[in-house]
Amino acid sequence: MADKLTPRHEDFNEWYNTLVLRADLADYGPARGTMIVKPYGWALWENIQQALDQRFKATGHLNAGFPMFIPYNFMQREAQHVEGFSPQLAVVTHGGGEKLEEPLVIRPTSETLIGHAFAKWVNSYRDLPILLNLWNSVVRWELRTKLFLRTSEFYWQEGHTAHATREEADFETRQMLDVYTDFAVNEAAVPVIPGEKSAMERFAGADQTLTIEAMMGDGRALQSATSHMLGQNFAKAFDIQYLDRDNTLQYVWTTSWGLSTRFIGAIIMVHGDDQGLILPPRVAPYQTVIVPIFKNDEEQSAVMAVTERVRQELTGAGVRVKVDNRDTLSPGFKFNDWELRGVPTRIEIGPKDVAQNSVALARRDRPGREGKQFVSQEGLANTVQSLLSEVQAALLERARQFRNEHTHDVDTYADFKEAIKTGFARVWWAGSDADEQRVQEETKATLRCFPLDQPGGSGTCFFTGQPAERMAVFGRAY
Amino acid sequence: MADKLTPRHEDFNEWYNTLVLRADLADYGPARGTMIVKPYGWALWENIQQALDQRFKATGHLNAGFPMFIPYNFMQREAQHVEGFSPQLAVVTHGGGEKLEEPLVIRPTSETLIGHAFAKWVNSYRDLPILLNLWNSVVRWELRTKLFLRTSEFYWQEGHTAHATREEADFETRQMLDVYTDFAVNEAAVPVIPGEKSAMERFAGADQTLTIEAMMGDGRALQSATSHMLGQNFAKAFDIQYLDRDNTLQYVWTTSWGLSTRFIGAIIMVHGDDQGLILPPRVAPYQTVIVPIFKNDEEQSAVMAVTERVRQELTGAGVRVKVDNRDTLSPGFKFNDWELRGVPTRIEIGPKDVAQNSVALARRDRPGREGKQFVSQEGLANTVQSLLSEVQAALLERARQFRNEHTHDVDTYADFKEAIKTGFARVWWAGSDADEQRVQEETKATLRCFPLDQPGGSGTCFFTGQPAERMAVFGRAY
Repeated sequence: MADKLTPRHEDFNEWYNTLVLRADLADYGPARGTMIVKPYGWALWENIQQALDQRFKATGHLNAGFPMFIPYNFMQREAQHVEGFSPQLAVVTHGGGEKLEEPLVIRPTSETLIGHAFAKWVNSYRDLPILLNLWNSVVRWELRTKLFLRTSEFYWQEGHTAHATREEADFETRQMLDVYTDFAVNEAAVPVIPGEKSAMERFAGADQTLTIEAMMGDGRALQSATSHMLGQNFAKAFDIQYLDRDNTLQYVWTTSWGLSTRFIGAIIMVHGDDQGLILPPRVAPYQTVIVPIFKNDEEQSAVMAVTERVRQELTGAGVRVKVDNRDTLSPGFKFNDWELRGVPTRIEIGPKDVAQNSVALARRDRPGREGKQFVSQEGLANTVQSLLSEVQAALLERARQFRNEHTHDVDTYADFKEAIKTGFARVWWAGSDADEQRVQEETKATLRCFPLDQPGGSGTCFFTGQPAERMAVFGRAY
Repeated sequence: MADKLTPRHEDFNEWYNTLVLRADLADYGPARGTMIVKPYGWALWENIQQALDQRFKATGHLNAGFPMFIPYNFMQREAQHVEGFSPQLAVVTHGGGEKLEEPLVIRPTSETLIGHAFAKWVNSYRDLPILLNLWNSVVRWELRTKLFLRTSEFYWQEGHTAHATREEADFETRQMLDVYTDFAVNEAAVPVIPGEKSAMERFAGADQTLTIEAMMGDGRALQSATSHMLGQNFAKAFDIQYLDRDNTLQYVWTTSWGLSTRFIGAIIMVHGDDQGLILPPRVAPYQTVIVPIFKNDEEQSAVMAVTERVRQELTGAGVRVKVDNRDTLSPGFKFNDWELRGVPTRIEIGPKDVAQNSVALARRDRPGREGKQFVSQEGLANTVQSLLSEVQAALLERARQFRNEHTHDVDTYADFKEAIKTGFARVWWAGSDADEQRVQEETKATLRCFPLDQPGGSGTCFFTGQPAERMAVFGRAY
């Protein structure tokens, strides 16, 4: 049997790094900072993509494909954008055997290309809004690789929209944050805090950045998706203007929003335990694994007949099923293997089950006997589907409870420092950028967001002692 | 009203280039050689992807994500591979503000990365076969851009498999060609000739390249997908070995196969006419467009009520429907617009139709009155679905007939030269590489393939006069 994972409380990083490899989600690519997403990780990503894509289309967005190459001068047109992204760029200097006249940047994000295209496509108010989404990969140079969390190339979607008015762009920015929140909570069972970023943490080129922040199993924060109101910054940098109903030239208002394979890191770190992954049923590549158990040919043929019938019934009911019929491995090894890989439910079928018209049904989120029951083969698809719903709800509830237990309202710096050792600190905040910077330097905690859900009223800033209008959530972040 | 397209017989290239832009399929990116695939083109690509992806999964393949960066030295390990791809590479020399120790190549194709990964992942015969597919984009430097056909970056899928035996790899190579043929014929209504490439036209690093070749509306050939038997070339270059059942180290056998957004070019050029695109119903983003017709508010409310009911009924039956309710355009303009964009059927609903419980139903492949009928609103979903099947079959039949009429069996060089002016020449062939090269230089026609479907027997090579065992198809190609 394979070695046990390092327990999470001993070394959370080590647990994570080993688990990603052992669960066969991803591997390191040969070029520094690159990642290979293996089939099991990619299937998880495809399920995430599908859940998001449906929501994007339901809100009127269309997918498109934009090139990976950006002329170098494009990056320089929006002052904050170039400042934010310059240190991270990968640059193509040679193509087709010759040195290029102007180097090309591999997109770190596509606002500049989008700005150029929108300027070409938009003439009148009739051309607005434009609601686009791109599924692609982007490159931001990284020296310290961590699979799914920090790689030079990562997969994501980037939404880009243009609107006639500020109100519409504001609505869009918030709408897409709501879409992300809905996805995170209801598909990935990841409770998130929707909120607004401070000026310091804003996207380079945005007037406002909204975010969803999640708490990982070690109490640290992970920014899980962002939605940016870009104001007229890119409209002015790329001259995106339209004739309004009064025949007057106006700049458009743009937004952008993204969620990446980083979110897979969130799923791993929110739900996983010392035995391995626990995947939320709605996004799990396999929702149930069937392990047939037999000792001789006679048992095998009886067991495999039931296994095949059960597989067909479940598949027909829309359950994603894997039958583990590897012939060189013991059932015990397989149980551990699929626990490590986080399949939310397991069905065991042995000769006794064949005789009794039953199966053993185990849930991944409750280890050992407590999570295992013997159920009838009759109506098994319904039984499994109910259990999957139960597991999905239980994962969300557990994560929510963990987060609540590790979030503390504090009003002194001493309590703040204590709180962010194990989780989030929620505080009244009236500090300046410099204050925010100082807190970060002294504690390594950053202002994750001003939650949209505010208690109301006002309080006293824990750091400056000044009156404060808003509460903020701080935490150490990935 | 917008200008008419250049008729195809006047200038096929001009017709194509204008149509791609006017039909809103794609646009030029700002960096030389790059392409923006606009939402309408991308929706077509998504339907192609889905049709292929189902077939790949049904034959046991799993999707994965591989990085775009290849260390420069990887390209040099397989001698023919580097020779074939070197002139087309895009090279990243700087990352994160610093010059890289070793430049990175942006993948022109991923055999080398796959070779490296397979070497890591394969140990024993139990790890085989590995059956992977990647959906991504690749970069091959191009100076003369032609949207969908020749761009520096293009979208595709690349399948990569490793097998224990030559027989299995041969089977896979042929199986995937059959998958492409099935897709082309039954989804895209593009009749293709499955065949084998000559040594000169093989993929750089392959022992054998299979291809499907289609004839465009101007008689020229388009290589529409390829499937390569890579032998042990990459296994040896990247040291991919496994322990067989007798505990002996063996090299694996690998294959690769791909279909790209080039295929969209084939769909445009096979089916389009002087009015614009004609999209095969099975891959068309919209299968039917509803144009409501009214003159006043009263008519509008009656017509829109029926339009909405029809839309719901069709959508519920799985038909992809677009309602064109743009309020500043006339019905006539809309008819032309959707004809240009190739929507296979059109439904017109006016006040008379409301009164008579009917709609006008037009098919795109038969212009004017001949293709238009008045049908009852009762059972309209069935009526539309039948018509879509009919259009799908008619497009395939028309393309097949065109190809057959423009394919000539010839046995003299004079007749050969005549045949390839308007289409394909089918000939007995026993020439050498040098002969093949000479034919190309003298006529611009290339050996497209040795069709898998051979007449049997033998004949006399039209070029060398030598006895020949196989017939070949020649044509001028894109």
